[in-house]
Amino acid sequence: MPLISLTTDFGDLYPASMKAVILGISPGVQIIDVTHSIRRASVREGAFALYSLAPYFPAKTVHIGVVDPGVGTSRRALAIKAGKPEQEQFFVGPDNGLLIPAARCLGEMEVYEITNKDMMLKSGVSATFHGRDVFAPVGAYLSKGTSIKEVGPQVSDFVDLDFGNFGIDGPFLMGEVVFADSFGNVITNIPEDVIFKFSTFGSQVEVNGRRVSFVQTYGFVGQDEPLALIGSHGFLEIAVNKGSAALQFGLKNGDQVAIKIM
Amino acid sequence: MPLISLTTDFGDLYPASMKAVILGISPGVQIIDVTHSIRRASVREGAFALYSLAPYFPAKTVHIGVVDPGVGTSRRALAIKAGKPEQEQFFVGPDNGLLIPAARCLGEMEVYEITNKDMMLKSGVSATFHGRDVFAPVGAYLSKGTSIKEVGPQVSDFVDLDFGNFGIDGPFLMGEVVFADSFGNVITNIPEDVIFKFSTFGSQVEVNGRRVSFVQTYGFVGQDEPLALIGSHGFLEIAVNKGSAALQFGLKNGDQVAIKIM
Amino acid sequence: MPLISLTTDFGDLYPASMKAVILGISPGVQIIDVTHSIRRASVREGAFALYSLAPYFPAKTVHIGVVDPGVGTSRRALAIKAGKPEQEQFFVGPDNGLLIPAARCLGEMEVYEITNKDMMLKSGVSATFHGRDVFAPVGAYLSKGTSIKEVGPQVSDFVDLDFGNFGIDGPFLMGEVVFADSFGNVITNIPEDVIFKFSTFGSQVEVNGRRVSFVQTYGFVGQDEPLALIGSHGFLEIAVNKGSAALQFGLKNGDQVAIKIM
Repeated sequence: MPLISLTTDFGDLYPASMKAVILGISPGVQIIDVTHSIRRASVREGAFALYSLAPYFPAKTVHIGVVDPGVGTSRRALAIKAGKPEQEQFFVGPDNGLLIPAARCLGEMEVYEITNKDMMLKSGVSATFHGRDVFAPVGAYLSKGTSIKEVGPQVSDFVDLDFGNFGIDGPFLMGEVVFADSFGNVITNIPEDVIFKFSTFGSQVEVNGRRVSFVQTYGFVGQDEPLALIGSHGFLEIAVNKGSAALQFGLKNGDQVAIKIM
Repeated sequence: MPLISLTTDFGDLYPASMKAVILGISPGVQIIDVTHSIRRASVREGAFALYSLAPYFPAKTVHIGVVDPGVGTSRRALAIKAGKPEQEQFFVGPDNGLLIPAARCLGEMEVYEITNKDMMLKSGVSATFHGRDVFAPVGAYLSKGTSIKEVGPQVSDFVDLDFGNFGIDGPFLMGEVVFADSFGNVITNIPEDVIFKFSTFGSQVEVNGRRVSFVQTYGFVGQDEPLALIGSHGFLEIAVNKGSAALQFGLKNGDQVAIKIM
Repeated sequence: MPLISLTTDFGDLYPASMKAVILGISPGVQIIDVTHSIRRASVREGAFALYSLAPYFPAKTVHIGVVDPGVGTSRRALAIKAGKPEQEQFFVGPDNGLLIPAARCLGEMEVYEITNKDMMLKSGVSATFHGRDVFAPVGAYLSKGTSIKEVGPQVSDFVDLDFGNFGIDGPFLMGEVVFADSFGNVITNIPEDVIFKFSTFGSQVEVNGRRVSFVQTYGFVGQDEPLALIGSHGFLEIAVNKGSAALQFGLKNGDQVAIKIM
């Protein structure tokens, strides 16, 4: 059964018209909302949401991502096939980096520019809502098995995006915040394998000068106490048991994090 | 595959019991949330959401709308069939105007009062939650192909609703706000064809005394700068690039807007 | 067609990875969000949401509930079958009482501890996200018809939970708040049959010393006026017409309510 996921910064109401268009083209397709609450125009935050979720979806899923401050300007529209043949997934969205980390982490990828007007909304394409008029119909056709080669020419000069650098600086492991979730959990770009080279569960680390326990899960520290853990995404995460690390540490998306191993 | 849309002011939790009732009657029907965040008891705002979304849905869709401050009083319950035979859609909800603009814009409509208790919740109808006890089951039966004539007698004296007047007043195009979305984009009741009689993209207009550019899309003005555009709904919209026009202009649902063509 | 409901305190984003895992195991299953906005770690509030919604779902529904402050610690994971054979529903979640009131109200129940690693996420179980790694896959297998006996051994020493006591104290009917919804409607644990022993619609009652009308529905009192009614859940509810009883009465989840019949 075909499956489409949606990741946008549209908030309320607008996603429903994307779904209406999708179901008009691909009746019976299942539609899963990843989120419609990406911070407005925050391409990097949307990219992280797609990147951390895509690996859990089944083969053939079509992910439509729309965080698109350049809508209606000359930015291109993309469709991507990524992953090994029997496990491939598809991505549809603007050419601003949003789709790239998710696609790349699935393995080999082919990137196409969407130019085929027959795959866009029949009643015309507005200047402000390509989510409904371009990305939704293209995603719907891909979910029905239309070949990705139909969307337009293959391209290699797409806009790239990564989650920033991390590395060793003296006694510090340096990284940055890629996502602060709605609970105030702060997710860094430092992968678990890097942390485990220097530390083990049960030890102490300093996060931006403040000592916290590095433990498996929230319940290992008291209420309102901070902790460092490996989040469900596989990255080092700073959290506060039943509280907000974003508030306690004053950290937001893009901020630097210095981890000192004790 | 049958399709039901839901538009309510129920917020969280309550929509799920509507879905449970629907799926008990019509297993496998697809349910799309249009929104559950209509401002509480704002019939006009709900009517606009339905009106702007319904045209994108496929034929045979059943739209259940519940913004219903009169629930449990003597207000009637309605089911409507609208549109040309092969493209007809259905609407179910209270008789307070909520469904009328959406139904009317699809073309010819037949309006029925819901009186058939066999199509309501078997365990009884509460005084406070007709969304679950009346509208959900009636919508579910319609989605299964039950004839709309089964719901009750046809009526013609339903409560009507429109989005207010717009027109020319000297050098001004006068209209009013019909919807302010969660980003602060302010949607007026002035249709695009009226605007284009007087202005073209690239010109300037005054919105309530303040000069703004009339352009195709957000990216054509600087960050935090206001603009006028034709929104994805086909109406004149006042926006601020990455900001809130509702805040900058102090405009909310129902307020007057005076557009001066320069 | 199989049906899974989700009730969590996960907010945004995280529910999507549960859905991805579910659809990988049980393609085509329908997934209904009950809510993802349970107050963080409020097991009792989640239990009430499940309890009030489950009776409306069709037979064979699998309810996954995850309000789980003890995730990653030694708390057990449970799967429950409840209700008469032809009407049975399933519940999956942590052993902290969350599932019990909902399961019990359907009738006879069998409780199993989840220990079978073959029914958990193949890529491994994280310490922080059993919703995705344990409860989602187990729920998906149950929705496909896997026998509940496969999850692990039957147990009887599960953690219990109820919604507190209510009773008569002199001229007062005493109870407590079990849920305050997003509108500020305050739902008590006093069932309608108890109220109707002492009072009838149209009479007056005192709620914590303040006189209000006991009526069928909101529209029977003026705007911003308080009322007592039987909510759609079948419990005594304190509300304010188009306003918030939680604010007007200063009531929140767990607070005592004294109802004086006049």
